[in-house]
Amino acid sequence: MASNTFGTLFAVTTFGESHGPAIGCVIDGCPPGIDIHEDDFRADLDRRATGKSRHTSQRHEEDAIEILSGVFEGKTTGTPIALLVRNTDQRSRDYAKIAEQFRPAHADYTYWKKYGIRDPRGGGRSSARETTMRVAAAVIAKKWLAQRGIVVRGHLSQLGEHVPAAFDWGAVEDNPFFWPDAAMVPTLETYMDALRKSGDSVGARVRVVAHNVPAGWGEPIYGKLDGDLAAALMSINAVKGVEIGDGFAAAGQRGTEHRDEMTPQGFLSNHAGGILGGISTGQDLVCSIALKPTSSLRLPGRSVDVHGNAIEVVTTGRHDPCVGIRATPIAEAMVALVLIDHALRHRAQCGDVGEVVPTIPSAVST
Amino acid sequence: MASNTFGTLFAVTTFGESHGPAIGCVIDGCPPGIDIHEDDFRADLDRRATGKSRHTSQRHEEDAIEILSGVFEGKTTGTPIALLVRNTDQRSRDYAKIAEQFRPAHADYTYWKKYGIRDPRGGGRSSARETTMRVAAAVIAKKWLAQRGIVVRGHLSQLGEHVPAAFDWGAVEDNPFFWPDAAMVPTLETYMDALRKSGDSVGARVRVVAHNVPAGWGEPIYGKLDGDLAAALMSINAVKGVEIGDGFAAAGQRGTEHRDEMTPQGFLSNHAGGILGGISTGQDLVCSIALKPTSSLRLPGRSVDVHGNAIEVVTTGRHDPCVGIRATPIAEAMVALVLIDHALRHRAQCGDVGEVVPTIPSAVST
Amino acid sequence: MASNTFGTLFAVTTFGESHGPAIGCVIDGCPPGIDIHEDDFRADLDRRATGKSRHTSQRHEEDAIEILSGVFEGKTTGTPIALLVRNTDQRSRDYAKIAEQFRPAHADYTYWKKYGIRDPRGGGRSSARETTMRVAAAVIAKKWLAQRGIVVRGHLSQLGEHVPAAFDWGAVEDNPFFWPDAAMVPTLETYMDALRKSGDSVGARVRVVAHNVPAGWGEPIYGKLDGDLAAALMSINAVKGVEIGDGFAAAGQRGTEHRDEMTPQGFLSNHAGGILGGISTGQDLVCSIALKPTSSLRLPGRSVDVHGNAIEVVTTGRHDPCVGIRATPIAEAMVALVLIDHALRHRAQCGDVGEVVPTIPSAVST
Amino acid sequence: MASNTFGTLFAVTTFGESHGPAIGCVIDGCPPGIDIHEDDFRADLDRRATGKSRHTSQRHEEDAIEILSGVFEGKTTGTPIALLVRNTDQRSRDYAKIAEQFRPAHADYTYWKKYGIRDPRGGGRSSARETTMRVAAAVIAKKWLAQRGIVVRGHLSQLGEHVPAAFDWGAVEDNPFFWPDAAMVPTLETYMDALRKSGDSVGARVRVVAHNVPAGWGEPIYGKLDGDLAAALMSINAVKGVEIGDGFAAAGQRGTEHRDEMTPQGFLSNHAGGILGGISTGQDLVCSIALKPTSSLRLPGRSVDVHGNAIEVVTTGRHDPCVGIRATPIAEAMVALVLIDHALRHRAQCGDVGEVVPTIPSAVST
Repeated sequence: MASNTFGTLFAVTTFGESHGPAIGCVIDGCPPGIDIHEDDFRADLDRRATGKSRHTSQRHEEDAIEILSGVFEGKTTGTPIALLVRNTDQRSRDYAKIAEQFRPAHADYTYWKKYGIRDPRGGGRSSARETTMRVAAAVIAKKWLAQRGIVVRGHLSQLGEHVPAAFDWGAVEDNPFFWPDAAMVPTLETYMDALRKSGDSVGARVRVVAHNVPAGWGEPIYGKLDGDLAAALMSINAVKGVEIGDGFAAAGQRGTEHRDEMTPQGFLSNHAGGILGGISTGQDLVCSIALKPTSSLRLPGRSVDVHGNAIEVVTTGRHDPCVGIRATPIAEAMVALVLIDHALRHRAQCGDVGEVVPTIPSAVST
Repeated sequence: MASNTFGTLFAVTTFGESHGPAIGCVIDGCPPGIDIHEDDFRADLDRRATGKSRHTSQRHEEDAIEILSGVFEGKTTGTPIALLVRNTDQRSRDYAKIAEQFRPAHADYTYWKKYGIRDPRGGGRSSARETTMRVAAAVIAKKWLAQRGIVVRGHLSQLGEHVPAAFDWGAVEDNPFFWPDAAMVPTLETYMDALRKSGDSVGARVRVVAHNVPAGWGEPIYGKLDGDLAAALMSINAVKGVEIGDGFAAAGQRGTEHRDEMTPQGFLSNHAGGILGGISTGQDLVCSIALKPTSSLRLPGRSVDVHGNAIEVVTTGRHDPCVGIRATPIAEAMVALVLIDHALRHRAQCGDVGEVVPTIPSAVST
Repeated sequence: MASNTFGTLFAVTTFGESHGPAIGCVIDGCPPGIDIHEDDFRADLDRRATGKSRHTSQRHEEDAIEILSGVFEGKTTGTPIALLVRNTDQRSRDYAKIAEQFRPAHADYTYWKKYGIRDPRGGGRSSARETTMRVAAAVIAKKWLAQRGIVVRGHLSQLGEHVPAAFDWGAVEDNPFFWPDAAMVPTLETYMDALRKSGDSVGARVRVVAHNVPAGWGEPIYGKLDGDLAAALMSINAVKGVEIGDGFAAAGQRGTEHRDEMTPQGFLSNHAGGILGGISTGQDLVCSIALKPTSSLRLPGRSVDVHGNAIEVVTTGRHDPCVGIRATPIAEAMVALVLIDHALRHRAQCGDVGEVVPTIPSAVST
Repeated sequence: MASNTFGTLFAVTTFGESHGPAIGCVIDGCPPGIDIHEDDFRADLDRRATGKSRHTSQRHEEDAIEILSGVFEGKTTGTPIALLVRNTDQRSRDYAKIAEQFRPAHADYTYWKKYGIRDPRGGGRSSARETTMRVAAAVIAKKWLAQRGIVVRGHLSQLGEHVPAAFDWGAVEDNPFFWPDAAMVPTLETYMDALRKSGDSVGARVRVVAHNVPAGWGEPIYGKLDGDLAAALMSINAVKGVEIGDGFAAAGQRGTEHRDEMTPQGFLSNHAGGILGGISTGQDLVCSIALKPTSSLRLPGRSVDVHGNAIEVVTTGRHDPCVGIRATPIAEAMVALVLIDHALRHRAQCGDVGEVVPTIPSAVST
């Protein structure tokens, strides 16, 4: 019920504003006995962090995780795990002048309409800074999933008008765009440099694949695995669309084309993206999200202020020209959080987490 | 938590299998004092029902709702409202022969992998028959919303390769396809006749708009209005994608194009689909879903049986060649259920349901 | 969250008014594969039912359970199990005259203050008739628990000023009072006959014991096993107090007296009632409840009506002079529902339901 | 669902171990606009804290609250409020020697049985130190309640064999026992000094009253106000019993004695403790709890260690000889948290928080 809690059995509650004293999370329901150390969070937080290349915001986020509870001598104890990150780079003066302004396409207006009050410092609670804690919580989830052979990984699949011409998982982590086509990276760099210079921004698409998910995870009707994935992915800042498997392309397909036939040797295709009836098939779980372009622009936009006056807004802070790039590790994190939650739900009702090696192998997917 | 319950404060729990004795639902948390009679359900259930034209399944579903509780002398009392529909057209013999078969692209395989047992009669719990109760529950939600001027309506926006060439809300209810372009209806009829004859099926896209949603509904982070819509819509049978506002098109847009500028006289566009930061803006709420083609086909498909043997499956039952058509009232229902739930959540925390006339009018949308 | 749902993983939602068309429940999250037939409910429903002796209400409740869903060929399938009982003995005319009156000590006044409307027929939703469905749901829970050796049983431990002088589980089911001291039964019968004649009523106390509960069930802080038991038992109509183990007697004890010492051969006492820190110890789980005297009396009482006028209320309907007697199977049911829920929660987080034979045996208890 | 979260709409999640780096909580769903400053927590935390008299533990807990989020310029914003207290007085060496021992009547054994691992430092998660955060969260709840005239206050009503001979709310805050009879305080001081000297401990009883609760708060069946109070109060460390109104005394009462008659001028008694059918009557809400004697004793007790060996345990740390004394502000806190949660739930469904001045006044109670 609580709006800042994700998950039911592996429940992650996040808190904190972009420019407040700290952000953090509490993970309740974590299985005991998982090895976890403060430096285990480093890799994924770095992947998510700004300041790693000139193509993302130049703010430097330290994101040093402190474990406050739930871990004893390097192992989870089953009690709530609280993680804390102090906000070191607050500079709230950057934002003071827009305290009475509503930036177009931001949550400024909606928070103010909802609560009658808002924290104007850096987007407050609606800032993407909150996603730091999702990535952190998912580090623990991924460890548990990895013990069962499950790997969650993602990549950028569209950057404005660009789509990959080739696909290689091996390329993804070797460029600042999580782009699966190494040959296109120089083009993208030129593209992004021009974009930043122009003061404009661009949207993106991210795709996430989870390998080796056992058949049988997910629940009927309102606890469907794809339903929970949709909520999880749509909850990421700037996301405007979610697809499972073929997604919107399915609207133009024939039944004979879309249905994934099965043989004892394996599935023959994976249009469904690994989910049927809301429950995993044992095939690769495949999902995609669309992210809108960054709303904070140096180019002026028409808006109103809290008094109802017409104003012109120019955002001069440091902002990514494409928020979608950094969304890759965040989307992976949300998929991992959904998976561990459904694993535990499945175990509760059915007694175990299901088969590790699928009865019917997945069709080859990329 | 419970997988067959939707919503938190207006909580709808559905039960029942396609070919069991009955389907039903329990609505908990309904505001008291709403006028409701058993014949109030008729219109929307008929819109959802099969058998209304030759383009949907020829099964005849009576869907006569019985109110079992929570209503006294025609008014809701605030206690749980139970609704029941007896399954009159069971004919389980149609399905007996496939009890040991897994139909490709159905939930047969995943339910069996999850539970180790499944009700093979007519798809059991995974049948779209369950959506009858969503539509029924939403009838009550829509009444409450209508008292506040909120209207939820939908239409088919793609049928296989066809998209509307014109748009007129007035046309939608006057053809069996919920199609907004009357001139195209003969073409679609010919198309669907040919499709049925071929034994194949096709996907579709449905769009839902909610007018006059107050600004301020929705919650931060994991209780976002768009997140809950995504879960609600993805939970509909056969849905593979969900979009809010411009959806996947946003991935190719520039920030200057996507951001909806505001003036005291109104928003200048509605690319966001009425939601920013997970909270409603007061603009029209716009969302779309993609539905895969019907999986039950007369054309043979390769599969396996419960013993692991390779088999060929042919489905001879009565099935819609496009499940997407009937999804229009179901999608409306899910949007209405999300809205009333968020209205109550907003009222809980903030004291009222918010402004009925928006401060800043919506951009004109269709 | 929903107020008419009990449990989190084995979630029971009840609905129905005392004199409406029907009462029922939906059980979501039930493990698959449990054998269940409609006549399995008979024994416990009869134990709860009125009309079985002259010491309880003379209304005859048939309580014939119909299984509407979730069971296929005699086995639970993992999908929601809906149970329905039609109300055959409605006679709402008995209650018509008190539609505008608030009966002292009933929920009439509070429901009316809450909702501004109430169903006056037989207490509506607040009637003890609702507990029929708790007992029915618990029949399934008890079957699952019994497979693990867990037995839940209860008895009356006080009836007005009477307390048992001896204790024998064997006597409990052989008298209409669930009384553990057979020699006292004639005295109680005389006592109850005189009480009924007088038009007054009396309170009672019920004790429930669960044997063979594994150590380790329960959760920290707000999901404590005793916390959930307290909520479950307090939710029974007329309950005004809940005790675990020694309960209120503990307020007068010394630490050296109360602490249950352990040896490798077993616990030496069970003052704690089988729970420490909110988690089961493997000892017998022991709890007690206090029930207030029946509020419906033939002896006139002062009250007000919906218009604020002073009135005198006399209740002429058929009512138990001691509601506590029938509470025994209801209290057992609630304990069973708490136990299965915690078993599943434990299995979700920790991987299995725990040891069936306790490492350290329970102290002998009665 | 999450075991470390209390409440549904005003949801408090606590974390932290007694001797870990910190304890804290996250409050989600708090109404916006409440004035709150870090020094607002001081008074209630001091009332709860140890070290304030020789009759409670001599550990000095600073309990300096840091607000990490959800408050902007001294007002709640509607987003999650995170509160943090660093543990300054850890001295984990005191506990090192009992890492492999199970202290009788502690949660050591049950946590170890549940999780297969435990944090042995100071009781870890099961320590009463966690209640600091309940008291802190309730400070905010009490502010909101006070704006509606609602006052929650408590007192000790039994200390071992002692019960108050007189009653005066004015005396309660003027002695270290929260005792309502000033004349008895010297006797209690002598009693407690002797008890501490003896190495033994004693149980206690605490009573809490909430004044001016509107009629209509609470929900049917499983969301009953008394059910939630029972869970809330039973969740406090060492509590073994909960009573509403007359509680266990009701088991021996007649209906004519127990029923609270109503007149237009007011209720004539309050045996029900302000709740009928799970919903508040507008009378004073009255509840009591029983607390077991402190389990940590200097007097040796028989136990086992993690290897199953028989051992003798002596606890030499600093411990209260009566944990019940400090439970008074904790019990008040839990009642306040239940009340605000039900106020918001009522407002969600019924539109407002109900009447501030009751239609029918409460009977005079103490």
